[in-house]
Amino acid sequence: MNKTRLEAFSDGVLAILITIMVLEFRAPHGSDIDVLIPIIPEVLSYVLSFIYLGIYWSNHHHLMHTVQRVTGGILWANLHLLFWLSLVPFVTGWIGENHFAPLPMALYGIILLMAAIAYYILTLVIIKTHGTDSILARAIGKDFKGKISPVLYVIAIGCSWISPWIAGGLYIVVALIWLVPDKRIEIIFKDEFKQK
Amino acid sequence: MNKTRLEAFSDGVLAILITIMVLEFRAPHGSDIDVLIPIIPEVLSYVLSFIYLGIYWSNHHHLMHTVQRVTGGILWANLHLLFWLSLVPFVTGWIGENHFAPLPMALYGIILLMAAIAYYILTLVIIKTHGTDSILARAIGKDFKGKISPVLYVIAIGCSWISPWIAGGLYIVVALIWLVPDKRIEIIFKDEFKQK
Amino acid sequence: MNKTRLEAFSDGVLAILITIMVLEFRAPHGSDIDVLIPIIPEVLSYVLSFIYLGIYWSNHHHLMHTVQRVTGGILWANLHLLFWLSLVPFVTGWIGENHFAPLPMALYGIILLMAAIAYYILTLVIIKTHGTDSILARAIGKDFKGKISPVLYVIAIGCSWISPWIAGGLYIVVALIWLVPDKRIEIIFKDEFKQK
Amino acid sequence: MNKTRLEAFSDGVLAILITIMVLEFRAPHGSDIDVLIPIIPEVLSYVLSFIYLGIYWSNHHHLMHTVQRVTGGILWANLHLLFWLSLVPFVTGWIGENHFAPLPMALYGIILLMAAIAYYILTLVIIKTHGTDSILARAIGKDFKGKISPVLYVIAIGCSWISPWIAGGLYIVVALIWLVPDKRIEIIFKDEFKQK
Repeated sequence: MNKTRLEAFSDGVLAILITIMVLEFRAPHGSDIDVLIPIIPEVLSYVLSFIYLGIYWSNHHHLMHTVQRVTGGILWANLHLLFWLSLVPFVTGWIGENHFAPLPMALYGIILLMAAIAYYILTLVIIKTHGTDSILARAIGKDFKGKISPVLYVIAIGCSWISPWIAGGLYIVVALIWLVPDKRIEIIFKDEFKQK
Repeated sequence: MNKTRLEAFSDGVLAILITIMVLEFRAPHGSDIDVLIPIIPEVLSYVLSFIYLGIYWSNHHHLMHTVQRVTGGILWANLHLLFWLSLVPFVTGWIGENHFAPLPMALYGIILLMAAIAYYILTLVIIKTHGTDSILARAIGKDFKGKISPVLYVIAIGCSWISPWIAGGLYIVVALIWLVPDKRIEIIFKDEFKQK
Repeated sequence: MNKTRLEAFSDGVLAILITIMVLEFRAPHGSDIDVLIPIIPEVLSYVLSFIYLGIYWSNHHHLMHTVQRVTGGILWANLHLLFWLSLVPFVTGWIGENHFAPLPMALYGIILLMAAIAYYILTLVIIKTHGTDSILARAIGKDFKGKISPVLYVIAIGCSWISPWIAGGLYIVVALIWLVPDKRIEIIFKDEFKQK
Repeated sequence: MNKTRLEAFSDGVLAILITIMVLEFRAPHGSDIDVLIPIIPEVLSYVLSFIYLGIYWSNHHHLMHTVQRVTGGILWANLHLLFWLSLVPFVTGWIGENHFAPLPMALYGIILLMAAIAYYILTLVIIKTHGTDSILARAIGKDFKGKISPVLYVIAIGCSWISPWIAGGLYIVVALIWLVPDKRIEIIFKDEFKQK
């Protein structure tokens, strides 16, 4: 019952974040094809962040599925995650407006890294509450995606000053890793359905 | 249980999109009737997009009704649809501000077309998950509205450069087609209620 | 089950509308008491519109309580109501920015009038679906508030050019009428609880 | 059933408020580290307000848990609370933009004070509806946090003109007081779970 509201609030925040980014590229003045060209980098950065927020929503969805009891710790670990995600529209607008300049690209990675760490903390808090024998705890041991992502973010942040394109490429790679269907999660779901 | 959250998230995004468009026409400076005149095309484009998003919400509502199991594929096909719909406020603002100029009118149609394709993909993914014998699969075979809409969008996009008014007229026609109560959906609902 | 999602979507839209108005008065430049003075009319108009949207949400809440079956008609009558309410932030910003000038005040009343008519249409559609013997049909016969409000709006719109203050006073009066607890609704609720 | 919708609406408003603040610091022009420096006070004020809205959401969550019956009084006391919280993004932007100047800092405290009073009124209305023997009534008698917060706000408001830093420090102190897990609430939850 508690969980429903935590999910509803998180869904609300994520729905707003994913939508608010559209406000960044306001209708351009003029109706020529030329006025659309400066918007292209903004659209590209929007697509990337849309996918990232989609991934977070999807993962959050799966993660909450394993929660049976909402404690104050889970509640604040969740808000902490939402805080970092709430900065995504800001950095998205910044990289778009500056055509993927080094500093914005690095900050984009830092926000993604902080969100990944916040997600990891949330996972730990949930495991701590539900016990190391819980479905989540068993699954997380083999969590390659969760372990490789921060490493790639750190490399991308470092590479931003060498070439923002490498950084951008790495952000796309991480997004693709997560988009590929996760056998691990599938198995958990099957386990859960069997239990029911 | 999963479905509830997918619906809640989609509702959230659609509610925000439908409302965010109002932010495009900010309170004009001055209090004469003159200052309202430039807002008229923006209001007209708002009305059209409001109806379109309303139709998508309503159809989405019916579509989700047939979903029994949410997979990763459905989740991402749904996000893909929301992505194209999230660009509706942008093109709405653009056609309004440029008084229905050719290029904005064409782009408006392209976004509607992409949303229609995304909706069709979502339908296919749901059918693939639930089997070709499912309620949805049976209903979709006779889906005239879903088939005629993209054709009319393509014609409208092409006509934008001949006359934006023809394009606008076609967008209104498609909206009207969808607004007319759908016997097909009614029948499905009746079937469903009988099953329960 | 359908009803839940109609309510959720309406709640989402109303929550966004009531909150979006705050975006109209952005943080002023400067930190003196002087910079707050031009914001006062904006805050006053915000308070009034906040109360109006609160009243609509509350009434909508009660109205939906009487709905047992959601039809396409109810869905679109509901969207029609949300459309007019979605224009409230616009007129709120306009009357605030122009210090309650005649035309903005009249337009504010027109939007309220259209919303009241849309609400009435929604009521009629619900009664048509559920039968004239339904709880709602019986209650609506004695609906004084619903009948007096449009009359007062029309008077207020007419008075806007004589004195915007009369118009403003009448809008406040209508809001106060609705804020007073409604014995009628209370009785319905009691009836309902008895039925359960 | 009523309660669900009151919670959903409140969650919606709080989710929007917590997210809307991000719109205050738009992507800066330029991609140097210099352009980020003026944003720092805005980020700091955002963090503080994010935590405050998080606390209100969390407390609201617990408070609603004790509600069994939603009356018109509870509904409006809740809207009254949401009204004051809706002004948080405005004062947050104002203190951020003016680098914690005295008047904005005082107004920030006034809004927090009004929200605290509104929360207290909501508590009273709920107790009045559910009886002084209710879970809430018993818990509230020992509510130290609720009693000390307004006192600290008043001191902070007064200190704003002496030093905005004292005011800011006190706002942080109040936030920290609330962040510390509340044994009292825990006990209530345990009681509730036992009842079920």
